[in-house]
Amino acid sequence: MRATTGYRATAPNTPLERAVLERRELRPGDVAVEVSHCGVCHTDLHLTSDPSGTYPVTPGHEFVGTVAAVGSDVTDFSVGDAVAVGNIVDSCGRCDMCVADQENFCREFPTLTYGGTDRIDGTTTIGAYSREYVVRDAFVYRRPVGLDPAAVAPLMCAGVTVWEPLRRWNVGPGVRVGIAGIGGLGHLAVKFARALGAEVTVITTSATKVGEAAALGADSTVVSTNTEQMSAARGSLDLIVDCVPVPHDVAPYLSLLALDGTLCSLGFLGPQSIEIMDLLVGRKSLSSAGSGGRRYTQEMLDFCGEHGITADVETVPSAEVGHAFDRLRKGDVRYRFVLDMSDLD
Amino acid sequence: MRATTGYRATAPNTPLERAVLERRELRPGDVAVEVSHCGVCHTDLHLTSDPSGTYPVTPGHEFVGTVAAVGSDVTDFSVGDAVAVGNIVDSCGRCDMCVADQENFCREFPTLTYGGTDRIDGTTTIGAYSREYVVRDAFVYRRPVGLDPAAVAPLMCAGVTVWEPLRRWNVGPGVRVGIAGIGGLGHLAVKFARALGAEVTVITTSATKVGEAAALGADSTVVSTNTEQMSAARGSLDLIVDCVPVPHDVAPYLSLLALDGTLCSLGFLGPQSIEIMDLLVGRKSLSSAGSGGRRYTQEMLDFCGEHGITADVETVPSAEVGHAFDRLRKGDVRYRFVLDMSDLD
Repeated sequence: MRATTGYRATAPNTPLERAVLERRELRPGDVAVEVSHCGVCHTDLHLTSDPSGTYPVTPGHEFVGTVAAVGSDVTDFSVGDAVAVGNIVDSCGRCDMCVADQENFCREFPTLTYGGTDRIDGTTTIGAYSREYVVRDAFVYRRPVGLDPAAVAPLMCAGVTVWEPLRRWNVGPGVRVGIAGIGGLGHLAVKFARALGAEVTVITTSATKVGEAAALGADSTVVSTNTEQMSAARGSLDLIVDCVPVPHDVAPYLSLLALDGTLCSLGFLGPQSIEIMDLLVGRKSLSSAGSGGRRYTQEMLDFCGEHGITADVETVPSAEVGHAFDRLRKGDVRYRFVLDMSDLD
Repeated sequence: MRATTGYRATAPNTPLERAVLERRELRPGDVAVEVSHCGVCHTDLHLTSDPSGTYPVTPGHEFVGTVAAVGSDVTDFSVGDAVAVGNIVDSCGRCDMCVADQENFCREFPTLTYGGTDRIDGTTTIGAYSREYVVRDAFVYRRPVGLDPAAVAPLMCAGVTVWEPLRRWNVGPGVRVGIAGIGGLGHLAVKFARALGAEVTVITTSATKVGEAAALGADSTVVSTNTEQMSAARGSLDLIVDCVPVPHDVAPYLSLLALDGTLCSLGFLGPQSIEIMDLLVGRKSLSSAGSGGRRYTQEMLDFCGEHGITADVETVPSAEVGHAFDRLRKGDVRYRFVLDMSDLD
């Protein structure tokens, strides 16, 4: 096994502790990545506080670094390459979803970057709050070197999760996109939609976010608690990317959609009650999406390289992960914490 | 006023009674239609049994006939023309939906053929269980004369309601369409989808409907109560047109959708509970639609003329409307009752 240093939670809601972690020896198709930065996703909080979870758990599924070693069959990557990895590290490769470049929807369920089950040896995957990660080459992506690596890390989960719906619903010039909820996902959705040439409206509960929305590139803002603004914006959007991370009634958002418009729900993944009449009038759709396939992940990274897009991050030494968790619980971050792993050496 | 003969319910759940009805005198843009046949829609049952409804009520909103008279400004129609009228007889004409040829979604609500409020004089509209109907010319459609008029009548409500989603989701060669529920709407959806060149699968709860589905032109049938068949059909459909007229869990149907597939709910218009995860995996959509705009209504009629498509109907003298209602309540009709109004002379 390959020893590396990282963090793990040994029980729910206890501080992450620094520990020596064991990675597998490189298989012929594997790449070892020296992790320079790993984003802190809400999922990391959830899965280290879940009373029914499996412990110990090492979180981390949006990270960047450089190639430290390659297996004997790897031809696409060399030692020293700038790379990035997201929240999926394997899939069946044969089902209709995989064949359609949507490994994120793999019928046999994709192998998650942590807490997943390795398809070869059946072990549980260990996340990237760690100095090294070993991963199948097919799930390693080329990272644009002109971009701040810390600010690239969140693109690998938050970024591609909003990128795919923007692409699927053909967002570009002439398309009116609403982004609800300006956090880790939402702030990237605004940047992407703007760079794709769309007309971007931020939908927020708070009038205090109007300035933030404009700074991110939004053309306009609708404060959802302001009935006059909501009424004035009725029927004005072709797509709403809903990044609000808590249960909420989508009916007011649906009223903002134009004919044949779609609300894509990304932030909250539980049960949703909906009045069919709210879809009928205007033939609207409710949809959802999550994560990204290999093709669209690389496409998103390349797009970010061309357009100079990264996440707005607050980078902290990895040893401060506990503090970052505390602040994330309170929503006190704009818009993503990123752990700098260099203090693990 | 113009006197005509028809039927009305004077209280909930009482037999319709024959009565003299008064139509407005023709306005300059009006057409008087001599009604030859009117379809019996489920809505007619509901609105003559609704305890909170307004009575008397004369149902009937899918009918055909010939032009009996025209107003002074009417240039598109002449006396004797073969025409048809659906469940909408006016709209604002100015809102985004009307401008987009979707008067059925008019922001000011379209004027319904019965039980609606006339936009000029504020009176309540009186339906087409009647020998004559007076209607604004813009909501009169040219009826293909080669088709049995009785079997055309249901196209005007049931037909256009399934036509619009088939068109909106680009149903044609190479598209795999599922039709759930084979009744007034569903049987027309099968015929349309087949004529549009799609691959058609009927989804039914009852194995006894397999023969019916094939007779209508379906390529295959999935019995939704058969877990093996449902499992085998997983991910195999691009669009499901859900015509099931009672509340039901859509999750099993969603499992049949392929990547980016859509379930369009037409049959049941109340609240629907849905797991967002059922949409996320495969980026599926839940949508709805209802009725049709002027453009698509005429398009549908022209398509039916070209392809020789009509509804499967059971035509009865209008005096037997009570018997038809009784049988419709039990679902005992394949697939639509049509009233022949010639016995009203």
